[in-house]
Amino acid sequence: MSLLTVGTVAFDAIETPFGKTDKIVGGAATYIAWSASYFTQPINIVSVIGDDFDMDELKALNARGVNTDGIEIRQGEKSFFWSGKYHMDMNSRDTLITDLNVLASFNPQIPEAYKNSDFLMLGNIDPSLQISVIKQLTKRPKLIVMDTMNFWMNIALDTLREAIAMVDVLTINDEEARQLSGELSLVRAAQKIHKMGPKFLVIKKGEHGALLFHNNQVFFAPALPLEEVFDPTGAGDTFAGGFIGYLAKTNDISFDNMKRAIIYGSAMASFCVEKFGTEKLKGLSTEAIDERVNMFIELSQVDIELV
Amino acid sequence: MSLLTVGTVAFDAIETPFGKTDKIVGGAATYIAWSASYFTQPINIVSVIGDDFDMDELKALNARGVNTDGIEIRQGEKSFFWSGKYHMDMNSRDTLITDLNVLASFNPQIPEAYKNSDFLMLGNIDPSLQISVIKQLTKRPKLIVMDTMNFWMNIALDTLREAIAMVDVLTINDEEARQLSGELSLVRAAQKIHKMGPKFLVIKKGEHGALLFHNNQVFFAPALPLEEVFDPTGAGDTFAGGFIGYLAKTNDISFDNMKRAIIYGSAMASFCVEKFGTEKLKGLSTEAIDERVNMFIELSQVDIELV
Repeated sequence: MSLLTVGTVAFDAIETPFGKTDKIVGGAATYIAWSASYFTQPINIVSVIGDDFDMDELKALNARGVNTDGIEIRQGEKSFFWSGKYHMDMNSRDTLITDLNVLASFNPQIPEAYKNSDFLMLGNIDPSLQISVIKQLTKRPKLIVMDTMNFWMNIALDTLREAIAMVDVLTINDEEARQLSGELSLVRAAQKIHKMGPKFLVIKKGEHGALLFHNNQVFFAPALPLEEVFDPTGAGDTFAGGFIGYLAKTNDISFDNMKRAIIYGSAMASFCVEKFGTEKLKGLSTEAIDERVNMFIELSQVDIELV
Repeated sequence: MSLLTVGTVAFDAIETPFGKTDKIVGGAATYIAWSASYFTQPINIVSVIGDDFDMDELKALNARGVNTDGIEIRQGEKSFFWSGKYHMDMNSRDTLITDLNVLASFNPQIPEAYKNSDFLMLGNIDPSLQISVIKQLTKRPKLIVMDTMNFWMNIALDTLREAIAMVDVLTINDEEARQLSGELSLVRAAQKIHKMGPKFLVIKKGEHGALLFHNNQVFFAPALPLEEVFDPTGAGDTFAGGFIGYLAKTNDISFDNMKRAIIYGSAMASFCVEKFGTEKLKGLSTEAIDERVNMFIELSQVDIELV
């Protein structure tokens, strides 16, 4: 099944307790596309970059079945740039630099060839742009998954709620779920967020795993306990890419299949954090992914017969 | 199989965002015994109380197959009393009062009839007392599980390490695992703690579930997402009681069976937090426990076939 993703393609500079990078390629759509590319083709990206971007990075995506024709290249302008420093526990970080550059005037134009994509993954951008993307499509995708963050809850809540009402799956972290719903209990938060529109809610808890809520059903997938988390940047987007990539590959959006998709997304995220940026995501094999999924199965599956 | 548990039997006064209690019955051994009583008999408690204790509470335990003859009753003295107040998120609390009373001079004497118990659960007390208990036994139990806390790491680390070296399973929370090992990564913490003696390590993460480490194997059980956590007091002890109770019932201390025991312990803890103190634990049925275990299975089990 075809997958359309809209989001940032950008530069990051990252500092962690284990080292630091110069400008490396990042951005939500980049991580989503790399991760999903192990599951489905074609993947269509819509984004914007400046002429400072490394075009070999786009070619590497093309070689993975990712169509980058929808990435607008602005001559004489610079790509979006984010720089951050992680604290010792890797759960919190300080943003050092946010240079919006081309992103400040991003107005996604969906190419005709993308307008009937089967699956849509909206990376974290201004919710008015997420709405614009959905409205440009000629066919309602089988599944729309949307990521967002607390920033938009703080400055554009009404627009954000309008966007949320249009999607099938919302992915946010636990603090964002609490903020959006005004509920401390994640169970109650999920109930309220379901009423805002999305039939499915994924609550990402970082090293504490992820929850999938659907009506009164709930599924939990742990994060893999790792000896070393090298760089958490992009883990949430990589998770989302694996999640929707697996759903697009299997063309099955049942709750049971979403459980599997959560495991695959978690497996992809566990790779992402092992190296800086997208480095680890670039050299994976189906065998390595299956092996990692098997580790998740061993981690969480148990054979219980009630007596 | 018979189970011996040594730990506090005490009074608590608890304040949460949902209400507050007068002095109610608490203490690690109380929660352990109530929880384990749904799985195995006899359960032998060794503890100490004052003459202010409510003897009907002991009778209620006796009716569940719990032998309380090993609870020393000190005339003219008061029972251990702890009072605490939980913050809004229920993950942190302030201790308001700690009156050691009889606990200050507790020196557990194991009755002859208890000295060949099959399983031993050491509740969180001074590690020198935990060592004394093990040394008094005439037969090495099939499994010794020990709980402790950061307090003993701060003031009695050498003795604590001596105790830890004598047990099979150590149960601590994630921050305590980091403190004890000096490692941020829980995987590395587990490797270091294995070298201190325990072949099994349970890391309790409260609302984020529990991890079981054994050599290079790891198992994770989530906590049940609840609409309301009413009172977390005793949840860790209730978990431990369900864990060792299930192991004693099944008389199987394999890693695979410990996975099941972790699920049963988590199920018991999920009941505990629904009401103040031991209230919820007093009225359970096998059917209710099985139903709760089924909820854990639905929460975490997934059917994946790798292609």
